[in-house]
Parts: sequence; structure tokens; C-alpha cells
Amino acid sequence: MFKKILIANRGEIALRVIRTCREMGIKTVAVYSTADKDSLHVKFADEAVCIGKPASADSYLNVAHIMAAAEITNADAIHPGYGFLAENSKFAKICGDHGIKFIGPTPEMINLMGDKVTAKETMIKAGVPVVPGVEGLLKDAAHAKWAANEIGYPVILKATAGGGGKGMRVVWNESEIEKNFDNAKTEAAASFKNDGIYMEKFVEEPRHIEIQVAGDQYGNVCHLSERDCSIQRRHQKLVEESPSPFMTDELRERMGDAAIKAAKAINYESVGTIEFLVDKHRNFYFMEMNTRIQVEHCVTEEVINYDLIKEQIKIAAGEKVSGKNYYPQMHAIECRINAEDPYNDFRPSPGKITVLHQPGGHGVRVDSHVYAGYVIPPYYDSMIAKLITVAQTREEACDTMYRALSEYVIEGVKTTIPFHLQLMQNEDFRSGNFTTKFLESFKMK
Amino acid sequence: MFKKILIANRGEIALRVIRTCREMGIKTVAVYSTADKDSLHVKFADEAVCIGKPASADSYLNVAHIMAAAEITNADAIHPGYGFLAENSKFAKICGDHGIKFIGPTPEMINLMGDKVTAKETMIKAGVPVVPGVEGLLKDAAHAKWAANEIGYPVILKATAGGGGKGMRVVWNESEIEKNFDNAKTEAAASFKNDGIYMEKFVEEPRHIEIQVAGDQYGNVCHLSERDCSIQRRHQKLVEESPSPFMTDELRERMGDAAIKAAKAINYESVGTIEFLVDKHRNFYFMEMNTRIQVEHCVTEEVINYDLIKEQIKIAAGEKVSGKNYYPQMHAIECRINAEDPYNDFRPSPGKITVLHQPGGHGVRVDSHVYAGYVIPPYYDSMIAKLITVAQTREEACDTMYRALSEYVIEGVKTTIPFHLQLMQNEDFRSGNFTTKFLESFKMK
Repeated sequence: MFKKILIANRGEIALRVIRTCREMGIKTVAVYSTADKDSLHVKFADEAVCIGKPASADSYLNVAHIMAAAEITNADAIHPGYGFLAENSKFAKICGDHGIKFIGPTPEMINLMGDKVTAKETMIKAGVPVVPGVEGLLKDAAHAKWAANEIGYPVILKATAGGGGKGMRVVWNESEIEKNFDNAKTEAAASFKNDGIYMEKFVEEPRHIEIQVAGDQYGNVCHLSERDCSIQRRHQKLVEESPSPFMTDELRERMGDAAIKAAKAINYESVGTIEFLVDKHRNFYFMEMNTRIQVEHCVTEEVINYDLIKEQIKIAAGEKVSGKNYYPQMHAIECRINAEDPYNDFRPSPGKITVLHQPGGHGVRVDSHVYAGYVIPPYYDSMIAKLITVAQTREEACDTMYRALSEYVIEGVKTTIPFHLQLMQNEDFRSGNFTTKFLESFKMK
Repeated sequence: MFKKILIANRGEIALRVIRTCREMGIKTVAVYSTADKDSLHVKFADEAVCIGKPASADSYLNVAHIMAAAEITNADAIHPGYGFLAENSKFAKICGDHGIKFIGPTPEMINLMGDKVTAKETMIKAGVPVVPGVEGLLKDAAHAKWAANEIGYPVILKATAGGGGKGMRVVWNESEIEKNFDNAKTEAAASFKNDGIYMEKFVEEPRHIEIQVAGDQYGNVCHLSERDCSIQRRHQKLVEESPSPFMTDELRERMGDAAIKAAKAINYESVGTIEFLVDKHRNFYFMEMNTRIQVEHCVTEEVINYDLIKEQIKIAAGEKVSGKNYYPQMHAIECRINAEDPYNDFRPSPGKITVLHQPGGHGVRVDSHVYAGYVIPPYYDSMIAKLITVAQTREEACDTMYRALSEYVIEGVKTTIPFHLQLMQNEDFRSGNFTTKFLESFKMK
């Protein structure tokens, strides 16, 4: 087992890794920018090395400084957390070249999943469903009709240079193609100076459901069931849960099998996540694989009683993963507590936390690097805590979440706590009947 | 279900009950002495009523004031917590007489178990093992020899007026009775002005292991497995865990059966605990039944994923308990964080908490009514928090406890945290090989 792990990250995930290392008897090295010198991850590590100025490029993305910190402290492994260098294959390779174990997959696996086109091709070969489409751009309405028949209605026309809905049309039948194709092309040309249009299957009432997997270097892969991350704001997850309220035993088997196929297709080793879109008919489509630990890993830990960081470290040290899959025994929800103003378009609210009181009691877990008197720096993401609740049923996990949110006191900055309190009282959320579009129509009271 | 529950208690257990009530959608009324006006249980309840001066007799034991608070707030039930009025049958009866549901067993059940002689007789009739002894006082050495043969060696001679080991002798054979009987009698006379001596079976290498039970008003009783509370200082529990490291599947079945027999013997309804002494041969003997929730109930909650307070409220509202027993799925440990100085004979250390930072993360639960700036009053017990950790194995639960204790920051008062840190590193504790005598030879470093 490793003797000393350097954590190339900050905030709650750095603390998360330090905690498990302490429990495993492994020494830790924190690295920090000058903006983070008072962060708990610095206080709780056995050693800490300043690696540069606040800007990420000068510190948490500064590979030379991080490698120097690892060498002077004699660390034998590096945990990258999430974000920053976690999916940087070059960094993973440099670690290996210096004889320091990168706690994650190999650079080749990161590359295979990092390139979206390669990843999609690999998945198709492995028999993992991807969102159906036709290759290349559509010439005209006739070509589009042919393509739609290949894919099956409904389909979506998208601008190849696009974004923000411009040049985008959902089409349900042939006559709608006739009506929409030229419009879409004109709009795309006007918006992006590029009238290229392509076509994909339209995923109806999509949910974001991902499968956690763990693989070792001996080819063993297991899945640890799903997380539902459909509650997103501009593709930023705000609430995650396990199991998904949309899940059935049958769908879990199908998605679990597909996730294992996906991981095996690249001989994946480490913990990782296969993200899928699931439509209202319970068809699912591969979106991408995250070759790292995820923010929302805690809900899985709570429902299967399992330390995913410990598993990740053990795998990196050459241990085997269990051959069996893991199924949720409980229901867990995570709310991301961000220093953002939910009444003002979730604008970041950095600054000093003057008063802090965290909730506790049965079924409540808090993962946070902040404390009373801590100053949230403006340079990094605004997440200051993850609040996780666990109970026998989803209803009870929501009740406990509402109770815990009610107890949470954070003064000095704005937070997303009022948003989460309203969400936990929202009937559609409570019913479990929501899609990734849910927050588009959600209004703060 | 109840609409509004008054909690006739203070501190962490009052907060514990409020939390579950909130999760169940039940309104809460806190009562408080003038010394507790800033306690969290007052802040988090829907309503709060001051019931008197700091002395318990004037407030938390003042039945008239508590009943008045219940009537003016229109509470339809009272939760007594533990301590204070929790095992006061007169209070339970008064609640009933006023049409307010006492959340606990009936006054008759409390009385049956409250009187130790009656309880022992009831257990013998029900076939639950008690510590063997002979009735009455011993006349002379010859009488003592006869009694020892009835009971079986080893036996213990005890002064009927005794305490503190005076007049107490452990005796392993006939010749030792000859040597010790008159000595013991003389010592008892000198110490207590009463030379009466009686005899009981000597329980070798005793462990305190208790079984949690839950019964309803329809005669259903189940057990929820054991807690080991052998780590005691002068009969005060300091650390509790579930499962017991001394437990075997076979012993759990025998003790579980006995606990169910004990509860059924008095038609017990509510949650309750049967405390046993277990000797090194895994014989077990009934000590007493606590007809209330216990401080250490949380370790059971964590290993069986179950809210005992919710269950207790549901039973009081007339719901049935599950017919099946519950078995530990995990390992949980609880450390009582008291405002006491472990380097100074655990002397109480009331006062203002100037800085507070509670641990968090995977496997950590904190139940506490204190916060930064809170002043611990000198009038009540010194427990300020319960720190509970849970993991797949005892080894890991201890590792997580050590990690969590290391993160805990409480400034302004002395606490038992240094004691618990040393305990978690103690080889005998870690081996699981200890008895109720363990702390007698434990020295702080």
C-alpha cells in the first residue's frame, strides 16, 4: 500500500481524500494556492506545500509545481480528485514517468474516453447504445427525410456550428421536415455563418442517469448501480440521488450490463462513471464516461455502504475488485451547497463565512472544507459543502434533507440552501417525475 | 398520528426527538429552564415554553409546569427522552389522566421494571436468567458453604448495606469461604454498622451487553440485536458499539430470545432495552430493563438503518411493529463527548464553547445541541455531543472514529476527546478483548 499520497486538488474533495487516507494509515500531502492557505485540506493534511498564485493555471493546473511538491515530500502516489488535472492524460503520464502512481486509469484509457468521437465509436463496437444519428451533414429536405426514416421519429435537427437552440428543430414526422429543414438552415447560417445541419434521435423526456463502475488491472469490473442527476441548471448538477426514482430492476440490469461492457471495452481500471441519457420509454444512450471520482459519489457510498475513495486507492495499489455488483439498500440524496445567490440567477457569492452551523443527526452527512471565519475565494468553483441524507425510502430521505437544510446556518455569503428547501417541497420533484428540463421552468418563490 | 409533541427534556435528546418530529411533519414544543434558553432544542422547536429555574426540581422534574406547558400549547403527546421523568410512572399516569399520550410504556410496565425485586421475580418466572443467588442473609461460614454449593463456585460475598468493595469477597472454593467469611462480616460491620452478608454468583470477566427491543400494543415484540457498553467508568457508559465484538450468532439468538421473553412477560409496548451481564463462558444474566430510549440508541440505528425515535412515536400512535428481528449489517461505535477533564479525574468542565468545528464525511454522525458561543450550564449532565461512526468492520469503524476525533475542535472547555483518541489507539480495546473492568486500569498518557 502507498505510504504517502499527494492530493492534487483543493476544497471538499481534497479533504475527502485526506479523510480516507487517515483512516487507511496513509500519510497525506496537501498542495494549495496562496488563496487557499487557510483551507481545511491544508490544516488536516500531514504536510502541505504551496504551489503558486490563486489562478488555477499558476497552481492547481501547474504540473511542474505539483510534481516538484510530490518529489520534495517523497509522495509515492497522487490523487487528482475531480476537475483540474483529473482527466488530463498528459499529467497521468508524467506521474508514471516519475515513478509516482497516478490514482486513476492509465493515460491511454483517459484518452480513449476523453475524445468524444473515439469514445462513441468504441461504445458502438462494444454494443453500448449511443444516441442514433446519421454521419455527416444533410444536403436537403429529401436527404433529411431519408435520414429520419433510418433513425426513426422523433428526430432533432441541429446546427453543426450551433448552440443555444439556434437552428435546432424537433421533428415528429415527414411533413414537419418539409416545413422546418430550410428554416433551420437559414437560422443556422444567420447565427453561426455556417448552415451545416445534422440529425440525431430526439431523446424524449430525457433523464440523466449514470452508472458507477469499478474495475481492476486484472480485468474484473463490477457496477455499483445508478445515480440520477437530472436536476441540472445549464448542465450543472445541483441534486443527485440513488436509486433513481425512474429506475426499474429490469432497466438497472440492462444499464448495468451496458456500463460493464463500456468499461471492459477499454480494460478500465479504477472507479469511473458511465453517463447515460434515458428517455421516457426507458431506452438509454451513452453520453460519456468520466474516468475519475465524481462530486456525487457520496450518494452511492451511502446506499451501498462502501468507501469509493478507499476502493479507488486499493485498485491503484493493485488490489482486486469484488466480482459482484452492488445494489442500493437505502435511498440517498445529495444537495450541492454553493456560495451562489439563487434569487439572483445563481450569481457566485464569495466572501467570509461569519457564522456556520452544520446540521447533524440520524441520516445526515456533511462533506465540507469550510468553517466559521473561512473566506471563500473568488477563483474557483462555488461549491462549499455537500449535504447528503440517507433513509429507507426516497420520501424519508427528502424529509430528512428538508429538516437538515432547515438547520443549516451559513451567514456572510448567499447560498443555494433556499433553492434546495423549495425544491424539497416541490410536488413534481417529490413525485420523482422530472427530466433534465425540470429546472428550466422552476421559479424561486 | 400526533399533531404536536412536547419534549419534556433538554440537550441532545430533545434535539434528537425534534429532528424526527420535523421529518414526520409533527409540530414540536420545547420546554426549557432559564439556564437553557439559548440551547438548540429551544431554537429548533416550533414553540418553546420556559418551565422554571435551572435546578432540575424546578424545571425538568417539575411535573406541574410541564403539564401546564403541554396544555397551553395544546400538545397531544409528550416525549420524555431519557433521564428526568422518562421512567417516572406517576408522570406517565398524569399524562394519561390529562388525555395526553405519554410516548413510552404504560405506568404499570414502568413500575414492574422500576422495582428491582419485582423485575427479578418477573424475569425468573418468564425463564430469563438472572444472576444466581440465595435469598436472605448468611448466618455463618457453614451456611455460606451450603449456599455456594447451591449456586456453584465462584461466588461473591457482599455486604447488604455495602458499596465501594467493603465487605466484598470473591470466593473460589470451600477453604476460601472458611478464610474470608468472618473477615467480610467484620469489615462490613466496621464500614456500615451492619454486618449482614449475602451471596451471589460471581460473574467472571463480565461484559455489559444489552438487547434493544420494540413491542406494540398488540403483543408483537421484536429485537434489534445488541449493544456492547462494557467501556464504563464508575458505571457511566463512555463508549458503546454494535455488534459486540464478543458476540456470536448463537449467543445473539439466545440473548434475543431472552429479551423478547422479558418484554413479553410484561406485555411491553414501546422501544426498550434489556441489560445483561455476560460472563467469559457466554452465560448471560438479566440486570435490568430500561423502559425508555437510551443515550446509545444511535449505534443500533446505524447498523440496522432504522430510526428508533420514529418507531417509538409510531408505536405510541398505535402502529404495529414488524414481526421480524433486526441484525447488524455494519459496525457502529459511539463516543460520548463530555465537557469533562480526562486528565483530572473526569471533573466536569462547564463554560463557554469559544470555537467549535465538528467532524464530517463518510461514516460520521454527530448528535449535539451545542454550537460556537454556547455556554454549557453547570446544572445538568456534562454530555455535549455523541460522535458515532459506522463502517463495514469494527476495525474500520475505529479508524473512522480516530479520524473524526482528530478533526473535532472544541475550545473553551475541557472534553473527553483526548480520552477517546487514546482509547481508539489502545491495543486491548482494538482487539475487542475487554470487560466492564477495563477502565479501572486505563491510564491517560
